[in-house]
Amino acid sequence: MSSQQEILLKPIGFVKTQAADGEVRHKTHTSQLVLNKELTAALEGIEGFSHLFVLFWLDKTTAEERKLLKVHPRRRKDLPLIGIFATRTMTRPNPIGLTLVELIKVEDNVLTVQGLDAFNGTQVIDIKPFDSLDNVENAKVPEWWTKLKKEKEQK
Amino acid sequence: MSSQQEILLKPIGFVKTQAADGEVRHKTHTSQLVLNKELTAALEGIEGFSHLFVLFWLDKTTAEERKLLKVHPRRRKDLPLIGIFATRTMTRPNPIGLTLVELIKVEDNVLTVQGLDAFNGTQVIDIKPFDSLDNVENAKVPEWWTKLKKEKEQK
Repeated sequence: MSSQQEILLKPIGFVKTQAADGEVRHKTHTSQLVLNKELTAALEGIEGFSHLFVLFWLDKTTAEERKLLKVHPRRRKDLPLIGIFATRTMTRPNPIGLTLVELIKVEDNVLTVQGLDAFNGTQVIDIKPFDSLDNVENAKVPEWWTKLKKEKEQK
Repeated sequence: MSSQQEILLKPIGFVKTQAADGEVRHKTHTSQLVLNKELTAALEGIEGFSHLFVLFWLDKTTAEERKLLKVHPRRRKDLPLIGIFATRTMTRPNPIGLTLVELIKVEDNVLTVQGLDAFNGTQVIDIKPFDSLDNVENAKVPEWWTKLKKEKEQK
């Protein structure tokens, strides 16, 4: 059983946002997902969901960065050096971003969403509706994650 | 701004499960994510999380199926015909599966997980830790989704 076969994706659209690259993480801005026109019909009924998962391509990740096996979360040396699959870092073998967003508006081939941490111009790979089966109560997270969250709340 | 550039992925491993294809949706079985050996170090620290998102390649989706714009959820004609981005159907332009699983065990390059609805031999694209920011309370879903959930609970 080979796991080496290559997989080819075609973007379904792109992200449009006024937020600068350094600001997208704050998630306070809205973004637009501009789908390829021919996919407009594939959005029908999406307004029935309040939240969506957006999968997008982290194209600023270099070939060298994709080979990294471990990172310090947020590049902070005071946090443990851990495997990249234990983080949401951009530097991963297949740099796909996954973010849960709130759906604000649907107009033709354009979705307006809140909470997307993708740069302007980012290629969108897929959009999936969020439902309550994607929730976990009392999920366990490591100490470094809790520390980062507390720091963010204190800001 | 072009959204037509092609994107190339390389699988990071594959799914190993005893469950037959028709049974994987029940999610009662465990599965193993067998990572490529050279990625073993990239799992370090993953045991700090209880739940993970698994991204995998739905390779049984044909080129024709990827062109579908609308489907009946679960192919049930009694449910509305809706856009594929309003469903989690396998038949989508980029057939990437996204499933939230519980992490049971980590041994070298192998993760044992529960709740994965991927067939035996499926190629794994990415693994991301789940945290409480991925939760949404009171997310809105359409009627057809609620109907399917109720039916499942009554079984």
